[in-house]
Amino acid sequence: MAQLSANKIKYIRSLGQKKFRDEYGLFVAEGEKIVAEAKASGYHIEEIYHADEIGSETMSRISNLSSPSPVLAVIRKPEFRTEDILDHLTSQTRGLYLALDGVKNPGNLGTIIRVADWFGVDAIFASPGTVEVYNPKVVQATMGAIFRKRVIYTDLSAVCKRFESAGLPVYGTFLDGKNLYEGVPADRKHGLIVMGSESFGISDTLRELIGNKLLIPPYPADASTSESLNVAIATAIICAEFRR
Amino acid sequence: MAQLSANKIKYIRSLGQKKFRDEYGLFVAEGEKIVAEAKASGYHIEEIYHADEIGSETMSRISNLSSPSPVLAVIRKPEFRTEDILDHLTSQTRGLYLALDGVKNPGNLGTIIRVADWFGVDAIFASPGTVEVYNPKVVQATMGAIFRKRVIYTDLSAVCKRFESAGLPVYGTFLDGKNLYEGVPADRKHGLIVMGSESFGISDTLRELIGNKLLIPPYPADASTSESLNVAIATAIICAEFRR
Repeated sequence: MAQLSANKIKYIRSLGQKKFRDEYGLFVAEGEKIVAEAKASGYHIEEIYHADEIGSETMSRISNLSSPSPVLAVIRKPEFRTEDILDHLTSQTRGLYLALDGVKNPGNLGTIIRVADWFGVDAIFASPGTVEVYNPKVVQATMGAIFRKRVIYTDLSAVCKRFESAGLPVYGTFLDGKNLYEGVPADRKHGLIVMGSESFGISDTLRELIGNKLLIPPYPADASTSESLNVAIATAIICAEFRR
Repeated sequence: MAQLSANKIKYIRSLGQKKFRDEYGLFVAEGEKIVAEAKASGYHIEEIYHADEIGSETMSRISNLSSPSPVLAVIRKPEFRTEDILDHLTSQTRGLYLALDGVKNPGNLGTIIRVADWFGVDAIFASPGTVEVYNPKVVQATMGAIFRKRVIYTDLSAVCKRFESAGLPVYGTFLDGKNLYEGVPADRKHGLIVMGSESFGISDTLRELIGNKLLIPPYPADASTSESLNVAIATAIICAEFRR
Protein backbone atom coordinates (compact mmCIF):
# COMPACT_ATOMS: atom_id res chain seq x y z
CA MET A 1 0.00 0.00 0.00
CA ALA A 2 1.23 3.46 -0.90
CA GLN A 3 1.05 5.79 2.05
CA LEU A 4 -0.52 9.22 1.86
CA SER A 5 0.77 11.72 4.42
CA ALA A 6 -1.69 13.38 6.77
CA ASN A 7 -0.91 16.68 5.04
CA LYS A 8 -1.66 15.23 1.63
CA ILE A 9 -4.96 13.82 2.84
CA LYS A 10 -5.87 17.16 4.36
CA TYR A 11 -4.95 18.92 1.11
CA ILE A 12 -7.13 16.66 -1.05
CA ARG A 13 -10.01 16.87 1.40
CA SER A 14 -9.79 20.65 1.33
CA LEU A 15 -10.77 20.57 -2.35
CA GLY A 16 -14.28 19.73 -1.18
CA GLN A 17 -14.50 23.43 -0.28
CA LYS A 18 -14.79 26.21 -2.86
CA LYS A 19 -12.30 28.38 -0.99
CA PHE A 20 -9.52 25.86 -1.53
CA ARG A 21 -10.58 24.97 -5.07
CA ASP A 22 -10.22 28.66 -5.89
CA GLU A 23 -6.90 28.95 -4.06
CA TYR A 24 -5.30 25.91 -5.72
CA GLY A 25 -7.12 26.05 -9.05
CA LEU A 26 -8.01 22.37 -8.67
CA PHE A 27 -11.06 20.18 -8.25
CA VAL A 28 -11.89 16.53 -7.65
CA ALA A 29 -13.75 13.94 -9.73
CA GLU A 30 -14.55 10.42 -8.55
CA GLY A 31 -15.59 7.18 -10.18
CA GLU A 32 -14.36 5.00 -13.03
CA LYS A 33 -16.58 6.56 -15.68
CA ILE A 34 -16.00 10.20 -14.74
CA VAL A 35 -12.24 9.79 -14.37
CA ALA A 36 -12.14 8.04 -17.75
CA GLU A 37 -14.00 11.01 -19.25
CA ALA A 38 -11.51 13.36 -17.61
CA LYS A 39 -8.61 11.44 -19.15
CA ALA A 40 -10.27 11.50 -22.58
CA SER A 41 -10.69 15.29 -22.36
CA GLY A 42 -8.05 17.96 -22.62
CA TYR A 43 -8.20 18.65 -18.89
CA HIS A 44 -4.93 18.49 -17.00
CA ILE A 45 -5.03 15.71 -14.41
CA GLU A 46 -2.66 16.39 -11.52
CA GLU A 47 -3.04 13.16 -9.58
CA ILE A 48 -5.05 9.95 -9.61
CA TYR A 49 -5.63 7.79 -6.54
CA HIS A 50 -6.84 4.20 -6.64
CA ALA A 51 -8.42 2.52 -3.62
CA ASP A 52 -6.46 -0.67 -4.30
CA GLU A 53 -3.21 1.30 -4.01
CA ILE A 54 -3.87 3.65 -1.11
CA GLY A 55 -6.35 1.43 0.72
CA SER A 56 -10.08 1.87 1.10
CA GLU A 57 -9.74 3.51 4.49
CA THR A 58 -7.55 6.28 3.07
CA MET A 59 -9.84 6.54 0.06
CA SER A 60 -12.84 7.14 2.30
CA ARG A 61 -10.90 9.96 3.98
CA ILE A 62 -10.17 11.82 0.73
CA SER A 63 -13.53 11.07 -0.91
CA ASN A 64 -16.48 13.44 -0.97
CA LEU A 65 -18.92 10.58 -1.53
CA SER A 66 -20.81 8.63 1.10
CA SER A 67 -19.67 5.46 -0.69
CA PRO A 68 -16.13 6.17 -1.92
CA SER A 69 -15.48 5.04 -5.46
CA PRO A 70 -12.39 3.03 -6.50
CA VAL A 71 -10.73 6.01 -8.16
CA LEU A 72 -10.37 9.73 -7.49
CA ALA A 73 -8.67 12.34 -9.69
CA VAL A 74 -7.39 15.79 -8.79
CA ILE A 75 -7.84 17.95 -11.87
CA ARG A 76 -6.79 21.48 -12.86
CA LYS A 77 -9.68 23.85 -13.44
CA PRO A 78 -9.78 25.06 -17.04
CA GLU A 79 -10.10 28.73 -17.89
CA PHE A 80 -12.79 29.65 -20.34
CA ARG A 81 -13.18 33.20 -21.53
CA THR A 82 -16.53 34.82 -22.27
CA GLU A 83 -14.88 36.81 -25.06
CA ASP A 84 -13.90 33.67 -26.95
CA ILE A 85 -17.59 33.21 -27.61
CA LEU A 86 -19.04 36.72 -27.50
CA ASP A 87 -16.43 38.29 -29.78
CA HIS A 88 -17.29 35.84 -32.53
CA LEU A 89 -21.05 36.18 -32.55
CA THR A 90 -22.55 37.30 -35.85
CA SER A 91 -26.05 37.20 -37.24
CA GLN A 92 -25.00 33.97 -38.95
CA THR A 93 -24.00 32.18 -35.72
CA ARG A 94 -26.14 29.04 -35.50
CA GLY A 95 -24.95 27.68 -32.17
CA LEU A 96 -27.20 27.05 -29.18
CA TYR A 97 -26.20 28.53 -25.80
CA LEU A 98 -27.68 28.33 -22.31
CA ALA A 99 -27.63 31.02 -19.61
CA LEU A 100 -28.40 29.95 -16.03
CA ASP A 101 -29.69 32.71 -13.79
CA GLY A 102 -29.03 31.60 -10.22
CA VAL A 103 -29.47 27.81 -10.37
CA LYS A 104 -28.62 26.80 -6.80
CA ASN A 105 -29.06 23.06 -6.59
CA PRO A 106 -25.90 21.09 -7.48
CA GLY A 107 -27.90 18.14 -8.82
CA ASN A 108 -29.84 20.45 -11.11
CA LEU A 109 -26.69 22.09 -12.50
CA GLY A 110 -25.06 18.70 -13.06
CA THR A 111 -28.15 17.37 -14.81
CA ILE A 112 -28.37 20.49 -16.99
CA ILE A 113 -24.75 19.99 -18.12
CA ARG A 114 -25.58 16.36 -18.98
CA VAL A 115 -28.63 17.52 -20.95
CA ALA A 116 -26.53 20.21 -22.70
CA ASP A 117 -24.06 17.53 -23.71
CA TRP A 118 -26.78 15.25 -25.09
CA PHE A 119 -28.31 18.03 -27.15
CA GLY A 120 -25.05 19.56 -28.38
CA VAL A 121 -25.38 22.91 -26.59
CA ASP A 122 -22.26 24.93 -27.45
CA ALA A 123 -21.59 26.54 -24.07
CA ILE A 124 -23.30 27.46 -20.81
CA PHE A 125 -23.13 30.91 -19.22
CA ALA A 126 -23.85 31.03 -15.50
CA SER A 127 -24.62 34.03 -13.30
CA PRO A 128 -22.28 34.58 -10.34
CA GLY A 129 -25.16 33.39 -8.09
CA THR A 130 -25.26 29.96 -9.75
CA VAL A 131 -23.76 27.06 -7.77
CA GLU A 132 -20.09 26.51 -8.63
CA VAL A 133 -19.57 23.93 -11.35
CA TYR A 134 -16.59 22.33 -9.52
CA ASN A 135 -18.68 21.58 -6.43
CA PRO A 136 -18.21 17.79 -6.05
CA LYS A 137 -21.97 17.20 -6.18
CA VAL A 138 -22.18 19.01 -9.51
CA VAL A 139 -19.19 17.15 -10.95
CA GLN A 140 -20.68 13.80 -9.99
CA ALA A 141 -24.15 14.68 -11.30
CA THR A 142 -22.74 15.49 -14.75
CA MET A 143 -21.66 11.85 -15.15
CA GLY A 144 -18.61 13.15 -17.02
CA ALA A 145 -20.35 15.64 -19.30
CA ILE A 146 -18.53 18.41 -17.38
CA PHE A 147 -15.41 17.57 -19.38
CA ARG A 148 -17.14 18.26 -22.68
CA LYS A 149 -19.05 21.47 -21.96
CA ARG A 150 -17.77 24.97 -21.23
CA VAL A 151 -19.46 26.58 -18.21
CA ILE A 152 -18.55 30.28 -17.92
CA TYR A 153 -19.46 32.46 -14.93
CA THR A 154 -20.22 35.98 -16.00
CA ASP A 155 -22.74 38.79 -15.91
CA LEU A 156 -25.73 37.53 -17.88
CA SER A 157 -27.05 40.99 -18.75
CA ALA A 158 -23.96 41.62 -20.82
CA VAL A 159 -24.32 38.22 -22.49
CA CYS A 160 -27.97 38.84 -23.42
CA LYS A 161 -27.08 42.25 -24.84
CA ARG A 162 -24.27 40.84 -26.98
CA PHE A 163 -26.53 38.14 -28.46
CA GLU A 164 -29.19 40.72 -29.12
CA SER A 165 -26.84 43.19 -30.74
CA ALA A 166 -25.50 40.41 -32.97
CA GLY A 167 -29.07 39.93 -34.17
CA LEU A 168 -29.44 36.53 -32.48
CA PRO A 169 -32.59 35.47 -30.62
CA VAL A 170 -32.65 35.43 -26.80
CA TYR A 171 -35.23 33.08 -25.25
CA GLY A 172 -36.51 32.53 -21.72
CA THR A 173 -39.43 30.71 -20.07
CA PHE A 174 -42.16 32.69 -18.37
CA LEU A 175 -45.69 31.83 -17.23
CA ASP A 176 -47.00 34.50 -19.60
CA GLY A 177 -44.81 33.27 -22.47
CA LYS A 178 -45.84 31.97 -25.86
CA ASN A 179 -46.45 28.24 -26.38
CA LEU A 180 -42.99 26.69 -26.93
CA TYR A 181 -44.30 24.75 -29.92
CA GLU A 182 -45.58 27.87 -31.64
CA GLY A 183 -43.04 30.40 -30.45
CA VAL A 184 -39.88 29.10 -32.13
CA PRO A 185 -39.82 29.19 -35.94
CA ALA A 186 -37.69 26.48 -37.56
CA ASP A 187 -35.15 29.06 -38.83
CA ARG A 188 -34.72 30.53 -35.33
CA LYS A 189 -33.75 27.40 -33.43
CA HIS A 190 -30.47 28.88 -32.26
CA GLY A 191 -29.25 31.68 -30.02
CA LEU A 192 -29.41 31.99 -26.23
CA ILE A 193 -31.85 30.29 -23.86
CA VAL A 194 -32.07 31.77 -20.35
CA MET A 195 -33.23 29.49 -17.51
CA GLY A 196 -34.20 30.92 -14.11
CA SER A 197 -33.46 29.83 -10.56
CA GLU A 198 -35.43 27.13 -8.73
CA SER A 199 -37.09 29.60 -6.37
CA PHE A 200 -37.32 32.89 -8.23
CA GLY A 201 -37.25 32.12 -11.94
CA ILE A 202 -35.60 34.68 -14.20
CA SER A 203 -34.62 37.93 -12.49
CA ASP A 204 -36.40 41.17 -13.42
CA THR A 205 -33.19 42.68 -14.80
CA LEU A 206 -32.80 39.89 -17.33
CA ARG A 207 -36.49 39.66 -18.13
CA GLU A 208 -36.34 42.97 -19.95
CA LEU A 209 -33.48 41.72 -22.11
CA ILE A 210 -35.29 38.59 -23.29
CA GLY A 211 -37.04 39.21 -26.58
CA ASN A 212 -38.69 35.79 -26.89
CA LYS A 213 -40.77 34.65 -23.95
CA LEU A 214 -41.76 30.99 -24.03
CA LEU A 215 -44.02 28.71 -21.99
CA ILE A 216 -43.83 24.92 -21.84
CA PRO A 217 -47.54 24.17 -22.11
CA PRO A 218 -49.03 21.85 -19.50
CA TYR A 219 -51.56 19.21 -20.54
CA PRO A 220 -54.36 19.90 -20.94
CA ALA A 221 -53.36 23.39 -22.05
CA ASP A 222 -55.79 25.02 -19.64
CA ALA A 223 -54.53 23.06 -16.62
CA SER A 224 -53.57 25.11 -13.58
CA THR A 225 -50.17 26.69 -14.07
CA SER A 226 -49.70 27.17 -10.34
CA GLU A 227 -47.43 24.15 -10.65
CA SER A 228 -44.04 24.27 -12.26
CA LEU A 229 -41.41 22.04 -13.73
CA ASN A 230 -37.97 21.50 -12.23
CA VAL A 231 -35.39 23.71 -13.99
CA ALA A 232 -33.37 20.76 -15.32
CA ILE A 233 -36.55 19.17 -16.68
CA ALA A 234 -37.61 22.43 -18.33
CA THR A 235 -34.15 22.85 -19.86
CA ALA A 236 -34.34 19.35 -21.31
CA ILE A 237 -37.77 19.86 -22.86
CA ILE A 238 -36.69 23.15 -24.43
CA CYS A 239 -33.39 21.78 -25.74
CA ALA A 240 -35.22 18.75 -27.19
CA GLU A 241 -37.61 21.09 -29.00
CA PHE A 242 -34.79 23.26 -30.36
CA ARG A 243 -32.97 20.17 -31.63
CA ARG A 244 -36.09 18.42 -32.90
CA MET B 1 -46.63 24.78 23.65
CA ALA B 2 -48.46 21.50 23.19
CA GLN B 3 -46.43 18.57 24.45
CA LEU B 4 -45.81 15.47 22.39
CA SER B 5 -45.12 12.33 24.40
CA ALA B 6 -41.91 10.42 23.81
CA ASN B 7 -44.01 7.56 22.45
CA LYS B 8 -45.79 9.83 20.01
CA ILE B 9 -42.50 11.26 18.77
CA LYS B 10 -41.12 7.77 18.32
CA TYR B 11 -44.26 6.73 16.45
CA ILE B 12 -44.08 9.64 13.99
CA ARG B 13 -40.36 9.17 13.49
CA SER B 14 -40.93 5.49 12.73
CA LEU B 15 -42.90 6.52 9.63
CA GLY B 16 -39.55 7.44 8.08
CA GLN B 17 -39.14 3.67 7.63
CA LYS B 18 -41.05 1.61 5.06
CA LYS B 19 -41.65 -1.17 7.58
CA PHE B 20 -43.70 1.11 9.82
CA ARG B 21 -45.43 2.90 6.95
CA ASP B 22 -46.62 -0.52 5.80
CA GLU B 23 -47.63 -1.56 9.32
CA TYR B 24 -49.62 1.60 10.09
CA GLY B 25 -50.76 2.42 6.55
CA LEU B 26 -49.53 5.98 7.02
CA PHE B 27 -46.90 8.33 5.62
CA VAL B 28 -45.54 11.79 6.29
CA ALA B 29 -45.49 14.98 4.18
CA GLU B 30 -43.75 18.19 5.21
CA GLY B 31 -43.87 21.82 4.15
CA GLU B 32 -46.57 24.46 3.67
CA LYS B 33 -47.08 23.77 -0.03
CA ILE B 34 -47.15 19.99 0.14
CA VAL B 35 -49.45 19.92 3.20
CA ALA B 36 -51.77 22.39 1.46
CA GLU B 37 -51.87 20.05 -1.55
CA ALA B 38 -52.64 17.13 0.77
CA LYS B 39 -55.55 19.06 2.27
CA ALA B 40 -56.87 19.96 -1.18
CA SER B 41 -56.80 16.29 -2.23
CA GLY B 42 -59.06 13.48 -1.13
CA TYR B 43 -56.34 11.97 1.04
CA HIS B 44 -57.23 11.35 4.66
CA ILE B 45 -55.03 13.44 6.95
CA GLU B 46 -54.65 11.88 10.39
CA GLU B 47 -52.69 14.59 12.16
CA ILE B 48 -51.00 17.92 11.44
CA TYR B 49 -48.17 19.34 13.54
CA HIS B 50 -47.04 22.97 13.45
CA ALA B 51 -43.64 24.06 14.69
CA ASP B 52 -45.16 27.09 16.41
CA GLU B 53 -47.39 24.79 18.46
CA ILE B 54 -45.08 21.92 19.34
CA GLY B 55 -41.84 23.89 19.29
CA SER B 56 -39.04 23.76 16.74
CA GLU B 57 -37.00 21.36 18.84
CA THR B 58 -39.81 18.77 18.83
CA MET B 59 -40.42 19.45 15.15
CA SER B 60 -36.80 18.67 14.34
CA ARG B 61 -37.21 15.36 16.17
CA ILE B 62 -40.22 14.23 14.13
CA SER B 63 -39.02 15.69 10.83
CA ASN B 64 -37.27 13.70 8.09
CA LEU B 65 -35.70 16.85 6.66
CA SER B 66 -32.32 18.33 7.48
CA SER B 67 -34.08 21.70 7.85
CA PRO B 68 -37.46 20.92 9.43
CA SER B 69 -40.35 22.77 7.82
CA PRO B 70 -43.01 24.63 9.83
CA VAL B 71 -45.66 21.97 9.23
CA LEU B 72 -45.80 18.17 9.07
CA ALA B 73 -48.80 15.99 8.23
CA VAL B 74 -49.37 12.31 8.94
CA ILE B 75 -51.49 10.98 6.08
CA ARG B 76 -53.27 7.71 5.37
CA LYS B 77 -51.95 5.83 2.34
CA PRO B 78 -54.58 5.50 -0.37
CA GLU B 79 -55.35 2.19 -2.01
CA PHE B 80 -55.33 2.14 -5.78
CA ARG B 81 -56.25 -0.98 -7.65
CA THR B 82 -54.65 -2.04 -10.92
CA GLU B 83 -57.98 -3.47 -12.03
CA ASP B 84 -59.68 -0.09 -11.85
CA ILE B 85 -57.57 0.86 -14.84
CA LEU B 86 -56.86 -2.42 -16.60
CA ASP B 87 -60.45 -3.67 -16.59
CA HIS B 88 -61.58 -0.57 -18.45
CA LEU B 89 -59.04 -0.52 -21.24
CA THR B 90 -60.48 -0.68 -24.73
CA SER B 91 -59.05 0.10 -28.15
CA GLN B 92 -60.69 3.51 -27.75
CA THR B 93 -58.88 4.40 -24.50
CA ARG B 94 -56.94 7.58 -25.17
CA GLY B 95 -55.22 8.03 -21.81
CA LEU B 96 -51.45 8.17 -21.30
CA TYR B 97 -49.88 5.85 -18.72
CA LEU B 98 -46.34 5.38 -17.43
CA ALA B 99 -44.70 2.16 -16.25
CA LEU B 100 -41.50 2.43 -14.19
CA ASP B 101 -39.28 -0.62 -14.30
CA GLY B 102 -37.08 -0.44 -11.21
CA VAL B 103 -36.50 3.31 -10.75
CA LYS B 104 -34.42 3.36 -7.56
CA ASN B 105 -33.59 7.00 -6.86
CA PRO B 106 -36.22 8.78 -4.71
CA GLY B 107 -35.50 12.15 -6.36
CA ASN B 108 -36.03 10.63 -9.80
CA LEU B 109 -39.36 9.06 -8.83
CA GLY B 110 -40.55 12.30 -7.22
CA THR B 111 -39.55 14.30 -10.28
CA ILE B 112 -41.27 11.80 -12.60
CA ILE B 113 -44.51 12.19 -10.63
CA ARG B 114 -44.19 15.97 -10.95
CA VAL B 115 -43.63 15.62 -14.72
CA ALA B 116 -46.60 13.22 -14.98
CA ASP B 117 -48.76 15.79 -13.24
CA TRP B 118 -47.66 18.60 -15.58
CA PHE B 119 -48.35 16.54 -18.67
CA GLY B 120 -51.61 15.00 -17.50
CA VAL B 121 -50.45 11.39 -17.34
CA ASP B 122 -53.41 9.32 -16.13
CA ALA B 123 -51.62 6.91 -13.80
CA ILE B 124 -48.19 5.45 -13.10
CA PHE B 125 -47.51 1.72 -12.75
CA ALA B 126 -44.35 0.82 -10.84
CA SER B 127 -42.55 -2.52 -10.65
CA PRO B 128 -42.09 -3.98 -7.15
CA GLY B 129 -38.39 -3.05 -7.45
CA THR B 130 -39.16 0.65 -7.82
CA VAL B 131 -38.49 2.85 -4.78
CA GLU B 132 -41.57 3.22 -2.56
CA VAL B 133 -43.63 6.28 -3.39
CA TYR B 134 -44.21 7.11 0.31
CA ASN B 135 -40.49 7.32 1.02
CA PRO B 136 -40.15 10.85 2.51
CA LYS B 137 -37.60 11.85 -0.15
CA VAL B 138 -40.02 10.88 -2.91
CA VAL B 139 -42.93 12.70 -1.27
CA GLN B 140 -40.88 15.88 -0.93
CA ALA B 141 -39.50 15.69 -4.49
CA THR B 142 -43.05 15.55 -5.93
CA MET B 143 -43.70 19.07 -4.57
CA GLY B 144 -47.30 17.95 -3.91
CA ALA B 145 -47.97 16.22 -7.23
CA ILE B 146 -48.13 12.92 -5.33
CA PHE B 147 -51.63 13.88 -4.20
CA ARG B 148 -52.87 14.15 -7.76
CA LYS B 149 -51.35 11.07 -9.39
CA ARG B 150 -52.04 7.39 -8.82
CA VAL B 151 -48.90 5.30 -8.43
CA ILE B 152 -49.68 1.57 -8.46
CA TYR B 153 -47.13 -1.16 -7.66
CA THR B 154 -47.72 -4.24 -9.71
CA ASP B 155 -46.19 -6.73 -12.12
CA LEU B 156 -45.42 -4.74 -15.27
CA SER B 157 -45.47 -7.76 -17.60
CA ALA B 158 -49.16 -8.20 -16.87
CA VAL B 159 -49.77 -4.48 -17.45
CA CYS B 160 -47.98 -4.50 -20.82
CA LYS B 161 -49.95 -7.56 -21.90
CA ARG B 162 -53.27 -5.98 -20.95
CA PHE B 163 -52.51 -2.81 -22.93
CA GLU B 164 -51.42 -4.88 -25.89
CA SER B 165 -54.45 -7.15 -25.84
CA ALA B 166 -56.68 -4.07 -25.70
CA GLY B 167 -55.04 -2.95 -28.93
CA LEU B 168 -53.22 -0.01 -27.29
CA PRO B 169 -49.62 0.89 -28.07
CA VAL B 170 -46.84 0.05 -25.61
CA TYR B 171 -43.70 2.23 -25.88
CA GLY B 172 -40.25 2.07 -24.35
CA THR B 173 -36.86 3.75 -24.93
CA PHE B 174 -33.96 1.71 -26.24
CA LEU B 175 -30.62 2.64 -27.81
CA ASP B 176 -31.69 0.73 -30.94
CA GLY B 177 -35.12 2.37 -30.96
CA LYS B 178 -36.72 4.51 -33.62
CA ASN B 179 -36.31 8.31 -33.54
CA LEU B 180 -38.94 9.59 -31.08
CA TYR B 181 -39.98 12.29 -33.52
CA GLU B 182 -40.66 9.79 -36.29
CA GLY B 183 -41.80 6.80 -34.25
CA VAL B 184 -45.06 8.13 -32.81
CA PRO B 185 -47.84 8.94 -35.29
CA ALA B 186 -50.20 11.71 -34.19
CA ASP B 187 -53.10 9.26 -33.81
CA ARG B 188 -51.05 6.98 -31.56
CA LYS B 189 -50.03 9.47 -28.87
CA HIS B 190 -51.59 7.43 -26.09
CA GLY B 191 -51.11 4.08 -24.39
CA LEU B 192 -48.33 2.93 -22.10
CA ILE B 193 -44.77 4.27 -21.89
CA VAL B 194 -42.25 2.04 -20.09
CA MET B 195 -39.19 3.70 -18.52
CA GLY B 196 -36.23 1.64 -17.30
CA SER B 197 -34.08 1.80 -14.21
CA GLU B 198 -31.14 4.19 -13.79
CA SER B 199 -28.54 1.42 -14.01
CA PHE B 200 -30.05 -1.31 -16.14
CA GLY B 201 -32.68 0.29 -18.37
CA ILE B 202 -35.68 -1.84 -19.25
CA SER B 203 -35.47 -5.48 -18.18
CA ASP B 204 -35.23 -8.21 -20.83
CA THR B 205 -38.57 -9.69 -19.78
CA LEU B 206 -40.37 -6.44 -20.51
CA ARG B 207 -38.39 -5.66 -23.63
CA GLU B 208 -40.14 -8.46 -25.50
CA LEU B 209 -43.51 -7.03 -24.57
CA ILE B 210 -42.81 -3.55 -25.92
CA GLY B 211 -44.02 -3.22 -29.49
CA ASN B 212 -42.77 0.33 -30.07
CA LYS B 213 -39.10 0.96 -29.36
CA LEU B 214 -38.12 4.62 -29.27
CA LEU B 215 -34.87 6.59 -29.02
CA ILE B 216 -34.53 10.20 -27.91
CA PRO B 217 -32.09 11.37 -30.59
CA PRO B 218 -28.96 13.16 -29.40
CA TYR B 219 -27.70 16.22 -31.31
CA PRO B 220 -26.12 15.90 -33.74
CA ALA B 221 -27.97 12.68 -34.53
CA ASP B 222 -24.72 10.78 -35.06
CA ALA B 223 -23.24 11.88 -31.71
CA SER B 224 -21.91 9.11 -29.51
CA THR B 225 -24.72 7.34 -27.75
CA SER B 226 -22.44 5.97 -25.06
CA GLU B 227 -23.95 8.74 -22.96
CA SER B 228 -27.44 8.64 -21.61
CA LEU B 229 -30.11 10.87 -20.17
CA ASN B 230 -31.34 10.71 -16.59
CA VAL B 231 -34.60 8.71 -16.42
CA ALA B 232 -36.64 11.67 -15.16
CA ILE B 233 -35.27 13.85 -17.98
CA ALA B 234 -36.04 11.17 -20.57
CA THR B 235 -39.57 10.77 -19.19
CA ALA B 236 -40.13 14.52 -19.47
CA ILE B 237 -38.93 14.72 -23.08
CA ILE B 238 -41.13 11.80 -24.08
CA CYS B 239 -44.21 13.09 -22.27
CA ALA B 240 -43.67 16.54 -23.83
CA GLU B 241 -43.55 14.93 -27.27
CA PHE B 242 -46.71 12.86 -26.65
CA ARG B 243 -48.55 15.97 -25.46
CA ARG B 244 -47.15 18.26 -28.14
